[in-house]
Amino acid sequence: MFNLHHSSGLDARGFLFGPLLAQRLGVGFVLVRKKGKLPGPTTSVSYTLEYGKAEVEIQEDAIEASQKVLLIDDLLATGGTLYAACELMKKLKAEVLGCLVVIELTDLKGAERIKPNPVFSLATSMIKASFFSATKTLRRILAISSSRDIINRRSSCCGFRVMAA
Amino acid sequence: MFNLHHSSGLDARGFLFGPLLAQRLGVGFVLVRKKGKLPGPTTSVSYTLEYGKAEVEIQEDAIEASQKVLLIDDLLATGGTLYAACELMKKLKAEVLGCLVVIELTDLKGAERIKPNPVFSLATSMIKASFFSATKTLRRILAISSSRDIINRRSSCCGFRVMAA
Repeated sequence: MFNLHHSSGLDARGFLFGPLLAQRLGVGFVLVRKKGKLPGPTTSVSYTLEYGKAEVEIQEDAIEASQKVLLIDDLLATGGTLYAACELMKKLKAEVLGCLVVIELTDLKGAERIKPNPVFSLATSMIKASFFSATKTLRRILAISSSRDIINRRSSCCGFRVMAA
Repeated sequence: MFNLHHSSGLDARGFLFGPLLAQRLGVGFVLVRKKGKLPGPTTSVSYTLEYGKAEVEIQEDAIEASQKVLLIDDLLATGGTLYAACELMKKLKAEVLGCLVVIELTDLKGAERIKPNPVFSLATSMIKASFFSATKTLRRILAISSSRDIINRRSSCCGFRVMAA
């Protein structure tokens, strides 16, 4: 067992999983949101995407220094958003125990970008191995991760039970 | 007790509550998202906001005809988004059992807009009664509804237990 204070989900599909995990483990849930969505004093980090730049924010008083956090999102692709979320936690002096994702696209090497923070994925997939183009594969995977099936059958039942054990 | 097939949360703060309720009741969870976010065949409804127009979407095969649904969001203000979500359910021939919100701003009369679908709110507030301007009040209420406290203490524990009883 580990000492955990919060799960933290990334806007917007991380919100589907983070509160479920928080409730199962009896810890708090903290929102990492796109720029301009959170009220009150916030701190932000910008990051590069394949197609430009983006920015994520957290409320300054959401986490106390040295508290332990698990970050959660649906998909790990190039790791830009999760990297930025890890940087947010560093700014608040919180300790990232790990990054949890439902699906990791291993050949995009997102886990490398997030190092030394460990990544735990329920499923992995290779874009290169697909008969489809990378874009089509991504769309298919996103279709799975946003469907009610994976939320109810895979992640909130099997996945989170494993992680909470 | 009622027969329920799905809870359905509105993008993005409805995602914080909907899956918790779905898990507690052992039903599916269906996403109502902003335009362009869902893969595959979708159906959409546009609606007016105080400051323009917006559009919400649902996957066409997310709900079968005559299935029963509870819609969930954090805040009921003028009711535009919830109205549009109810229209989406009508398009899929689903039956809306009710709209659940954490906070209802009663003097904005959002519940009227959603009729005849019933609204269940955990808390109500009046913008007129406030010492602050409407905008400031909304910002304060949103601050509450997006904080970890209300998620962990109010809604996922007390609120949803009441609603599931």
